[in-house]
Amino acid sequence: MTDALPALLHELREAVGSAHVLTGQEDLSAWEWDWRKRYRGRALAVVRPATTSEVAQVVRACVRHGTSVVPQGGNTGLVGGGVPDDSGRQVVLSLSRLRGIRSLDRDNLTLTVEAGVVLAQAQKVASEAGLLFPLSLAAEGSCTIGGNLATNAGGTQVLRYGNARDLCLGLEVVTAQGEVWDGLSGLRKDNTGYDLRDLLVGSEGTLGVITAATLKLFPAPLAKVTAMAACDTIEQTVALLHRARQALDAQLTGFEIMAQAALQLVMHHFPTLPQALPPAPWCVLLEASGPQGPCREAMEQLLEAALEAEEISNAALADTLAQAKTMWHVRESIPLAQSQDGLNIKHDVSLAVSAIPGFVRDMGQRLQAAIEGVRLITFGHLGDGNLHYNVQAPVGQDAAEFLARYEAEINTWVYDDIMARGGSFSAEHGIGALKRVELAERKSGVALGMMRAIKAALDPMGIMNPGKML
Amino acid sequence: MTDALPALLHELREAVGSAHVLTGQEDLSAWEWDWRKRYRGRALAVVRPATTSEVAQVVRACVRHGTSVVPQGGNTGLVGGGVPDDSGRQVVLSLSRLRGIRSLDRDNLTLTVEAGVVLAQAQKVASEAGLLFPLSLAAEGSCTIGGNLATNAGGTQVLRYGNARDLCLGLEVVTAQGEVWDGLSGLRKDNTGYDLRDLLVGSEGTLGVITAATLKLFPAPLAKVTAMAACDTIEQTVALLHRARQALDAQLTGFEIMAQAALQLVMHHFPTLPQALPPAPWCVLLEASGPQGPCREAMEQLLEAALEAEEISNAALADTLAQAKTMWHVRESIPLAQSQDGLNIKHDVSLAVSAIPGFVRDMGQRLQAAIEGVRLITFGHLGDGNLHYNVQAPVGQDAAEFLARYEAEINTWVYDDIMARGGSFSAEHGIGALKRVELAERKSGVALGMMRAIKAALDPMGIMNPGKML
Repeated sequence: MTDALPALLHELREAVGSAHVLTGQEDLSAWEWDWRKRYRGRALAVVRPATTSEVAQVVRACVRHGTSVVPQGGNTGLVGGGVPDDSGRQVVLSLSRLRGIRSLDRDNLTLTVEAGVVLAQAQKVASEAGLLFPLSLAAEGSCTIGGNLATNAGGTQVLRYGNARDLCLGLEVVTAQGEVWDGLSGLRKDNTGYDLRDLLVGSEGTLGVITAATLKLFPAPLAKVTAMAACDTIEQTVALLHRARQALDAQLTGFEIMAQAALQLVMHHFPTLPQALPPAPWCVLLEASGPQGPCREAMEQLLEAALEAEEISNAALADTLAQAKTMWHVRESIPLAQSQDGLNIKHDVSLAVSAIPGFVRDMGQRLQAAIEGVRLITFGHLGDGNLHYNVQAPVGQDAAEFLARYEAEINTWVYDDIMARGGSFSAEHGIGALKRVELAERKSGVALGMMRAIKAALDPMGIMNPGKML
Repeated sequence: MTDALPALLHELREAVGSAHVLTGQEDLSAWEWDWRKRYRGRALAVVRPATTSEVAQVVRACVRHGTSVVPQGGNTGLVGGGVPDDSGRQVVLSLSRLRGIRSLDRDNLTLTVEAGVVLAQAQKVASEAGLLFPLSLAAEGSCTIGGNLATNAGGTQVLRYGNARDLCLGLEVVTAQGEVWDGLSGLRKDNTGYDLRDLLVGSEGTLGVITAATLKLFPAPLAKVTAMAACDTIEQTVALLHRARQALDAQLTGFEIMAQAALQLVMHHFPTLPQALPPAPWCVLLEASGPQGPCREAMEQLLEAALEAEEISNAALADTLAQAKTMWHVRESIPLAQSQDGLNIKHDVSLAVSAIPGFVRDMGQRLQAAIEGVRLITFGHLGDGNLHYNVQAPVGQDAAEFLARYEAEINTWVYDDIMARGGSFSAEHGIGALKRVELAERKSGVALGMMRAIKAALDPMGIMNPGKML
């Protein structure tokens, strides 16, 4: 604790009120632990401003004292990007009290909300206006819009609507100097200078603090159809994707693949969950949605044509909403089934869609040759080229022991192979603390040079979330 | 001419071959004039590298000599961003010889091309593979992909497919230090660091030189329907847009509005061009396209419902491709009719869609009250909130005299009003040399500060297209 600390705490209390500056007197573990419990930091204080102006005051106080700031949203990140380090000298800036719904513009199809608004709440506000905010991911009940944007969150509807970055038209940001940039334009076209919005989105709190955003809304789809199809090979899933895009275009809103081992894990841990199809090497969950009626016919025609072309061996169309939900439930149960089964080696990778079969085939052979009975829990958003390529110990083998023995080696194999095929070692989860070494080692030196120059330019004191990403 | 000049020219000739370093001996006006003939610069040399590596050598030579570089694509920009200043000390770096089509990936729906590929050529390559590259604008026969990306070009299909930035998945860039960044990933998800791609897109050659890009392709729409509708008020056009989005969602690929004065100008200068509807205060050109058949029925239902709701007073559906083309031809003839009519005061502005009626009404009243008979040639992409709000002299009045008298004042009125409503004074044309003063005066100081810091960080010598944008 430095001599200046009482002064800093005093200024923080002046800025946000004593009740919202939490220090060691309280239990700070909700802010100090990441939710996967891989990172446990220690905060100097947790500060909870209620307005953008208070956020700016907090940052300016930290600037004056050279204290670093760790912005935190719903604390649901997967790479430890929102928790402090263990120095006890960082201020956690929680955005959770910035919960205002500033405006919904029906004609402009935009929603302006503050950073602490929970994703599900933003979805609900849109839905109540007969519109859709399409960002959708497992943590939507607790993650916040600010965090979604700071990490450029992905999810299951990227295929049609894009990542969080694509869903954002404008930002309000508190800079590393504690100034407020009001970029909440809601404009769909604005060529007046550099794209600061997209630079801040995905910067993981290292360049500034997102305090509010103007989000894109869409007409709520009136018709929706969900189906499950079985493929014998990964190549067939790619062929089916190509066919589905041609047939459905923008009405194709979901295309998730699941390897047999992933579904087996779900069947094992959730035996009462109905499976739409008998086991097959690959299952594909397809969803089409749109404003009008013909989704269902289009999906039926698609699946018939794919059967005829022998790209799929079986298919089931959901007849009821309940059946559709069950299909999604199976898909969404994979991560849960995995964690019930014990620790595993996770990879959130992306490739050009055309490069996926080669990777799946080659890496599968290599891993199975090296580790008898290893389980490859491969699933993900094929339409975005994004695989969750998770490696689980053989049945009966101790998971912790498996990880201790193989994690580093398998990570190297997987990331080396992914990079050699032009892919990414972090498709949607980001860098945070977890993949910082990977970034330094695997990202192009020229790109890293530009990133470091930008970081130094916008945050010359290095107080914004140091130790994350760069 | 400095003493170092012969050395620089020698190095440039070494890099690209003597035949591709043009100096004062040749006529350089094709590179020194912008195509609207508003800017006439004078180049030290025009250098025409053929490969990325040659581009890097050229930039490094310029770095060594502290000589500034003006990247140029098809030289079709509207703001003088691609031509040199009149110092005779800048090197024009023409990308026109980088014409390679590097790859087309059908499964990944991507096309990788070099910067000098003409937009129409990229469209053609996609089309020959049964796919669509949807960027479409008036200059597509001569503008290049590099220029489209450097200026974040818009055009007529932004409503459905987005701006050039949204259509780009990866870039290859020569930095201001002459290094090559290979970011041609073709990945739809990649959260490994700052979004350098979107930062370079739209940076108008001030941060680096785009040498190649990986572009998004889409399934080619098999069904398309075009219609024209008449509205009595601008408010009705907004209501029709809302209805059309709800009914057609992503199948709505065009929504262009045209004020009566704009169509009158077309009728006057192109009297043989058939008009689909009798004159009305506002005409809307709608286009729907998609993979399947029901576009036409959906459009018919939409227009019937809009008639019933009294949002439109009349409508015509194109029965043939020829009729559809004529509808578009009328829309596309507006700029030509304007230039045949003489100089006018152009504004490429954007607003939230909901703010457009207020602007059109208030500014129209103000201008008409101030200048009797002034013609407001208002047209544009309502779906993107983008208006071309052009002010033409009253019939019979000398255009040059009108401009001399009113241009500065009307620009101030229009931009003040647009900014007060949260809009943009450059929606799709960019800043270049033309709007540099506007940018410095009207952009948020905080945003300008970040932009200048980024410029200084990535181009510390200030050699990349100085005098443009910032």
